[in-house]
Amino acid sequence: MGTAVCEAVAVDPELELVAAVDQLAAGEQRSGVATSSELRAFADAECDVVVDFSVADAARVSVPWLAMHDIHAVVGTTGFDEGDLALFESAFGAGPAHCLVAPNFAISAVLMMRFAELAAPLFDNAEVIEYHHDAKIDAPSGTAIATAQRMAMARGDLPWRPDPTEHEVLPGARGGEGPGGIRVHGVRMHGMTAHQEVVFGALGQSLTIRQDSYDRSSFMPGVLVACKRIADHPGLTIGLDTYLGL
Amino acid sequence: MGTAVCEAVAVDPELELVAAVDQLAAGEQRSGVATSSELRAFADAECDVVVDFSVADAARVSVPWLAMHDIHAVVGTTGFDEGDLALFESAFGAGPAHCLVAPNFAISAVLMMRFAELAAPLFDNAEVIEYHHDAKIDAPSGTAIATAQRMAMARGDLPWRPDPTEHEVLPGARGGEGPGGIRVHGVRMHGMTAHQEVVFGALGQSLTIRQDSYDRSSFMPGVLVACKRIADHPGLTIGLDTYLGL
Amino acid sequence: MGTAVCEAVAVDPELELVAAVDQLAAGEQRSGVATSSELRAFADAECDVVVDFSVADAARVSVPWLAMHDIHAVVGTTGFDEGDLALFESAFGAGPAHCLVAPNFAISAVLMMRFAELAAPLFDNAEVIEYHHDAKIDAPSGTAIATAQRMAMARGDLPWRPDPTEHEVLPGARGGEGPGGIRVHGVRMHGMTAHQEVVFGALGQSLTIRQDSYDRSSFMPGVLVACKRIADHPGLTIGLDTYLGL
Amino acid sequence: MGTAVCEAVAVDPELELVAAVDQLAAGEQRSGVATSSELRAFADAECDVVVDFSVADAARVSVPWLAMHDIHAVVGTTGFDEGDLALFESAFGAGPAHCLVAPNFAISAVLMMRFAELAAPLFDNAEVIEYHHDAKIDAPSGTAIATAQRMAMARGDLPWRPDPTEHEVLPGARGGEGPGGIRVHGVRMHGMTAHQEVVFGALGQSLTIRQDSYDRSSFMPGVLVACKRIADHPGLTIGLDTYLGL
Repeated sequence: MGTAVCEAVAVDPELELVAAVDQLAAGEQRSGVATSSELRAFADAECDVVVDFSVADAARVSVPWLAMHDIHAVVGTTGFDEGDLALFESAFGAGPAHCLVAPNFAISAVLMMRFAELAAPLFDNAEVIEYHHDAKIDAPSGTAIATAQRMAMARGDLPWRPDPTEHEVLPGARGGEGPGGIRVHGVRMHGMTAHQEVVFGALGQSLTIRQDSYDRSSFMPGVLVACKRIADHPGLTIGLDTYLGL
Repeated sequence: MGTAVCEAVAVDPELELVAAVDQLAAGEQRSGVATSSELRAFADAECDVVVDFSVADAARVSVPWLAMHDIHAVVGTTGFDEGDLALFESAFGAGPAHCLVAPNFAISAVLMMRFAELAAPLFDNAEVIEYHHDAKIDAPSGTAIATAQRMAMARGDLPWRPDPTEHEVLPGARGGEGPGGIRVHGVRMHGMTAHQEVVFGALGQSLTIRQDSYDRSSFMPGVLVACKRIADHPGLTIGLDTYLGL
Repeated sequence: MGTAVCEAVAVDPELELVAAVDQLAAGEQRSGVATSSELRAFADAECDVVVDFSVADAARVSVPWLAMHDIHAVVGTTGFDEGDLALFESAFGAGPAHCLVAPNFAISAVLMMRFAELAAPLFDNAEVIEYHHDAKIDAPSGTAIATAQRMAMARGDLPWRPDPTEHEVLPGARGGEGPGGIRVHGVRMHGMTAHQEVVFGALGQSLTIRQDSYDRSSFMPGVLVACKRIADHPGLTIGLDTYLGL
Repeated sequence: MGTAVCEAVAVDPELELVAAVDQLAAGEQRSGVATSSELRAFADAECDVVVDFSVADAARVSVPWLAMHDIHAVVGTTGFDEGDLALFESAFGAGPAHCLVAPNFAISAVLMMRFAELAAPLFDNAEVIEYHHDAKIDAPSGTAIATAQRMAMARGDLPWRPDPTEHEVLPGARGGEGPGGIRVHGVRMHGMTAHQEVVFGALGQSLTIRQDSYDRSSFMPGVLVACKRIADHPGLTIGLDTYLGL
């Protein structure tokens, strides 16, 4: 992940790569926690923005350090709890540096979720079908569940048209029952990477929002957008949505 | 169904509508079984072909009657058992009239099933996703199960790549386990009619066969093809496949 | 259209059908322009909202008449010019009645266009593919062109990645060049109704927004939403978007 | 390509990698033509099958050499003319070694073309839409044109329903006119690799065959199948179809 970010930053005409630290390699015996001498490299290089794809333990040290040194933090690391986010919020509160913590930098996935949320109150039914490579051990995907969650929140009390199924001839055929009763289906397929469809139905029509991630590079455009726009988003921001004007 | 067939036959330049009998309307109190006087209309009109969309009880009388009167029978009625088919086979055996019994006349659905069968031995994974209107009470659809059955038969002993799922976070998310272990997913959606996708995966690629039925008229092209080609298919034929050159 | 609206209003638990006027049938010799005695029916019935699917000539009379009688107007009629809209705006200006003029009431199509607009600034490429029945004489559809127009406006000066095509082996293979240079493809297919895909690409990913209209009833959910929400939208509103919270 | 084949052969439990020759690297100054000493390596290793992904000039030497040494040849090299194929046919004619020359080893693409051919006589309309990465300089793709060619051949004299278009508002919107009048559309999209849809329409229904190649590895399953089945296919075979039981 880090290598890919470095390459993408290096070739972007609007950005310049001035420093890179591999916390995991450097800190195998220290659980991936960068020492202050390693973080020092960022300050020495006079970074405007640091992109952090590491592990929660490491980021709990490095992200507040960035706030203290007035460096913007674009954070793709996962595994934070409420307390971590509260800490980040106060660390970046009123200072000149800003922080983005986003679980997903794939622009197409972020848009899919937002569009699904906008559409949810306007249709009679909705289901989610996700497709992943055949090494994925959990089903459905976290993205699929998160999508259904946001759809359910957006719909609120408005009920969906009832599921007509009286006889599930093959148990599980109607998928898993997700948040708000939204049915979620997971397909596993050799050759695929990560794909998702959200399908909505109403009288005489349907709407399908489909997102395809072909490889890990799909995170990159979102990371670059974040680096370019973070100066305009004070404090702590959760999720890429507001950066994308959604 | 009958009305639609009559209209379609009437406008086809290669066919002529010479007689029509509504067994159900005529026979409400007789369980839809046509009397010989009603069937007589077909002989009087010197029909080459009779299309039968009725009920099994009625067709058990009328189909053998057609054989005896040297009239080809295109039968879309469902609910026959092995004994019925054996009877039809012997009735049409060596005579000048032929018989087609087909559970599905939607050309696109027949092709989808045949293509799925051809592809099944050549990929690592396959799953079936069907989409139907929200008044369908069984899931998955009979067509989806029949498709999986033919795929499983075609694949024989060759195992699919194993399902990677260790944790089904939402029970049912991986769909129903169909014939040959093929996963089958059913989606219910207001506004839709009947649609199905069969998805195959292998290293670096996938193949998707999708069939959409937008309304009941989707049966018609297959019925017309059957009427035109039945003279070339002696005896009893089960399924439209051979008529379509598959 | 009118009949369908009447039926839909009649069955909706939140709405009541109190009057209906068929301007076209009544006015065959008068170019579809309702007389004041016909319009009178709406006032007599104490309508809250009138839905107008007629022709521009008729609506130029009836829509201002509705404003004067403090009746909300939901207008699906097309063919207005700038002058007409200016007139409607002043007619409904500060009064208690409101007016919605929308070229498209299919919720799925309205959302597709809005989502395409939101996504346009965030990807490297975008193309539009529309599918219609085989009686459509113009290509591409007006909806496809309107979609591209909104995408181009939303993107502004930001250039798309350049079209790589050096050799169009079959002239026209790259589609028509629409607003902002967006390529638009039209497919004509017996059996289909009206469908559209907007496809976006970026590093390692794509996003597809697909809308399917299966029949004319697809306009109905949007008309009903408009009737229910028009009281909250003062003055003249163009397009269903704001009614849908977009 | 060669490296990928070697790896795939090496890990397949039914195959063994016994020799590999890089004609292009070895022969940079000799236009990629392997010398007999290099080819000798195959005979020394007692290969059953040699896979040739090189250039036409090189293969013109090596393929007949393989025939003479009773080694099966699986050839993915392109650029042969009629004379080359005639030569291969006579070289492998009655001998113990067999030859497969195939322009495309992606199983999903080979099936798509075959299925399109089978469906072509049975529908009223058909169009081809291909999607490729944004470095492709020709449009439409060779695969799309080849697909339309096979569809047109299979359909023969049977006309398609006429194109309804009277007014192409954006020139090119209806795509390029391919073999048999089949419309072919090419989409170019950053992030995509190589994808194709063939869409068929008839009364009340449509059938879509979609193929996705996610990366170059999509050729591999077909190469492995060819190596395993070549012993059963005497003489020269053109195209993977018969090997796949199509």
